[in-house]
Amino acid sequence: MKRLADIGLIGLAVMGENLVLNMESKGFTVAVYNRTAKKTEDFVNGRAKGKNILPAYSLEELVASTSRPHRIMIMVRAGRPVDEVIENLLPYMYKGDTLIDGGNSNYRDTIRRTEYIEGKGMLFVGTGISGGEEGALTGPSLMPGGSPEAWPHIRSLFRSIAARVDDGTPCCDWIGENGAGHFVKMVHNGIEYGDMQLISEVYYILKRLAGLDHDEMYHVFDTWNRGELNSYLIEITRDIMKFRDADGQPLLEKILDAAGQKGTGKWTSVESLDLGVPLTLITEAVFARFLSARKEERMKASELLKNPAINDLPERKRLIEDLRMALYAAKIVSYAQGYSLMRAAAEHHRWDLDFGGIALIWRGGCIIRSAFLDKIQEAYQKNKHLPNLLIDDYFSRQIMQAEQSWRRIVSAAVMNGLSIPALVSGLTYLDGYRSDRLPANLIQAQRDYFGAHTYERTDRPRGEFFHTNWTGRGGETTSGSYEG
Amino acid sequence: MKRLADIGLIGLAVMGENLVLNMESKGFTVAVYNRTAKKTEDFVNGRAKGKNILPAYSLEELVASTSRPHRIMIMVRAGRPVDEVIENLLPYMYKGDTLIDGGNSNYRDTIRRTEYIEGKGMLFVGTGISGGEEGALTGPSLMPGGSPEAWPHIRSLFRSIAARVDDGTPCCDWIGENGAGHFVKMVHNGIEYGDMQLISEVYYILKRLAGLDHDEMYHVFDTWNRGELNSYLIEITRDIMKFRDADGQPLLEKILDAAGQKGTGKWTSVESLDLGVPLTLITEAVFARFLSARKEERMKASELLKNPAINDLPERKRLIEDLRMALYAAKIVSYAQGYSLMRAAAEHHRWDLDFGGIALIWRGGCIIRSAFLDKIQEAYQKNKHLPNLLIDDYFSRQIMQAEQSWRRIVSAAVMNGLSIPALVSGLTYLDGYRSDRLPANLIQAQRDYFGAHTYERTDRPRGEFFHTNWTGRGGETTSGSYEG
Repeated sequence: MKRLADIGLIGLAVMGENLVLNMESKGFTVAVYNRTAKKTEDFVNGRAKGKNILPAYSLEELVASTSRPHRIMIMVRAGRPVDEVIENLLPYMYKGDTLIDGGNSNYRDTIRRTEYIEGKGMLFVGTGISGGEEGALTGPSLMPGGSPEAWPHIRSLFRSIAARVDDGTPCCDWIGENGAGHFVKMVHNGIEYGDMQLISEVYYILKRLAGLDHDEMYHVFDTWNRGELNSYLIEITRDIMKFRDADGQPLLEKILDAAGQKGTGKWTSVESLDLGVPLTLITEAVFARFLSARKEERMKASELLKNPAINDLPERKRLIEDLRMALYAAKIVSYAQGYSLMRAAAEHHRWDLDFGGIALIWRGGCIIRSAFLDKIQEAYQKNKHLPNLLIDDYFSRQIMQAEQSWRRIVSAAVMNGLSIPALVSGLTYLDGYRSDRLPANLIQAQRDYFGAHTYERTDRPRGEFFHTNWTGRGGETTSGSYEG
Repeated sequence: MKRLADIGLIGLAVMGENLVLNMESKGFTVAVYNRTAKKTEDFVNGRAKGKNILPAYSLEELVASTSRPHRIMIMVRAGRPVDEVIENLLPYMYKGDTLIDGGNSNYRDTIRRTEYIEGKGMLFVGTGISGGEEGALTGPSLMPGGSPEAWPHIRSLFRSIAARVDDGTPCCDWIGENGAGHFVKMVHNGIEYGDMQLISEVYYILKRLAGLDHDEMYHVFDTWNRGELNSYLIEITRDIMKFRDADGQPLLEKILDAAGQKGTGKWTSVESLDLGVPLTLITEAVFARFLSARKEERMKASELLKNPAINDLPERKRLIEDLRMALYAAKIVSYAQGYSLMRAAAEHHRWDLDFGGIALIWRGGCIIRSAFLDKIQEAYQKNKHLPNLLIDDYFSRQIMQAEQSWRRIVSAAVMNGLSIPALVSGLTYLDGYRSDRLPANLIQAQRDYFGAHTYERTDRPRGEFFHTNWTGRGGETTSGSYEG
């Protein structure tokens, strides 16, 4: 009798194939299906050859090839294709079976699908998977959420294939109900946008203000990677600096400065706007990609609007050290904003998120993995109700040590016409966050002046609203709504 | 026989009442209805007494009180209430009648409603109305869009009640199909958020860095209001500086620095993210309101994270003049971003927007009215296909004259720990927009390194994509999608 597979997987693009190979290498038998049969054949006769990987040529066959309760993982393009696969799959699924969506789905879709699938007596998991194609193969960071009853069915499989940190802890834990896993993955991606933008701005300054060549920049990133900034993105940036094109010149300089994106950074910004959370640094990073993509428009503008000449340069060694401090402090602000967003979402959706645990999950396998995440885990271990990372003891000390350096970097860039939106907006947020008095009182006065929107007073309890007849004309009516 | 009204209006909150009185004062007879009859009675026995205003106590009566083809204007709270009123109204409406939604509706709802109402053989108009309660009474700025066939039916009424600029031109013109009117109104509101944030930051610097008292600030804004910055918001800011509380102290300082909002600024940012347009300044203004609202959190943080002491102050007179220049230049950038968003939306939704005409509509009646808008109209008169206001002759000259002042202001605020997100992000955008080379090449290298997302090259035509095997390990496969 043919052995039944432990899990079935649909969608054999790179991510899907690599996950299958990862599972198989950990001792699991995997049944695989792809819409085009040729892809399945190529896989089983190629990378999957001689392994416990069973081809299936219909969804019915795929389900039948797996043991009960069935576990079927979907690795197709996010959006409508996921719904289509679910619909086609449902006739062959039984009550108690688990459907897993491992794509980059929007968490709102995952909330909807969890409810839908649970309504049919089955279980649904929407899991974030980070680490790219290599992570999928060798150990990704996994962020599963959905039907809590599904977790025992997939726990051992998920934790086996996940990345591990040095002490052997797998980078995978149950995140929370319905869309929680995909939400946390979305924030991960937003943070990734922020980190990448910050590093690119640092490169910009190293090159344009400090005048370093690529060997020197390699050395800077290599040194930084041995300290507090140790992380995957700094490591690959170091390697990128070293990489030469066929003609011996740095390949980096031949790459067009027009950044692409797949939209999940944008989602994070939209959610922050909907939840009322100031997520400035990541949003500036998203906008910076938009602006970079308008290459032709920028080239035209550069002819008309000349940049100022570079002058007043700080001393090189100090500039580099200032940059290191600024990058670290900006990273703290960016993560503080991202965690603040997760906190607001947890309240809104009633997810019981373990913020320290999330830092641990990101500690390995994924793109933003870094030594720094240990510090975040520690901060939440000390205080799981910490309102903002910026007021944790360790981080507030780091910020205060770094802030003068950060100010000098921003000022130098501003005076020399270099656009560094992420470094700038992070500092602006920090200065706003720690201000007991912002100029928003004027905004409230203006709103009350022209729209009778009322205001609160510093000498009265919050929740008491006042309206002033500023002009002596007009009514005393306050503006509640459009309704009478 | 009872005279029939020219138009019926539903919803007698302040905006509705004032619009009715405005219409009546221009010679129109208006039938009015409110969900609670008491409000209608109070109105006809109060402010409407002795005027050509006819009360109706049911929707059927309201429609029957108006001449055919019927024109019914809805002034209720945006969202579901509008749909409810429409449903309740439809049984009494005839083919060819016009339904007008004058609330702050989301333009996506207006697109949907236009299609729905047109499907029933009637006409729909979604109109932006700006100017607050006073504008509604004395002449608002009107931005109607929807069914183009409706325009002849409402044109004379709308242009009669609209604000007028000095030469008598009414601040009202047909914007475009379906949701175009509400979209343009939304951008107006976003720009209003930006303007208000910019002015509040200027006040912050005048007070905290230049050390001006309120009489001095009154004088500054009064002077500015006579020049290029002449605008309604500068004018009311001047008046706010002068306004004293009962104890003789400036009322402004007793107003809590926690800004409220009704969401339309946020919508603008969300649209910019969806359309891929870098709308940094307005978005920072929206985030600044969020941050201001977290007053308690800020007060706690201010104890732990001390602000730097103020030092290195520029000379006061120069600081004030620098501020004036910075404010003007930042305003240019903010409007350039807003217009860039409208341009992208027009392309996406196939609206034939008249950008110069929109500047003219905003020229009077609305909150952002200013002398400055004439310059925008002129820019689009010279070139209706202008890709960005920043490269218009006049504006690029202004920017180049102001930019050193702007840099000094930002640098001084940054060095002294004052958070001025709008002024800062505007400058950062300017510096990015005119850069022919941004560091996004590093982002593309990183994305290709960890995700095989490919990149374009500076020495190859656009549209050709390359992948590098950066590590020597891993595959040569590029990442297209999740699908095989």
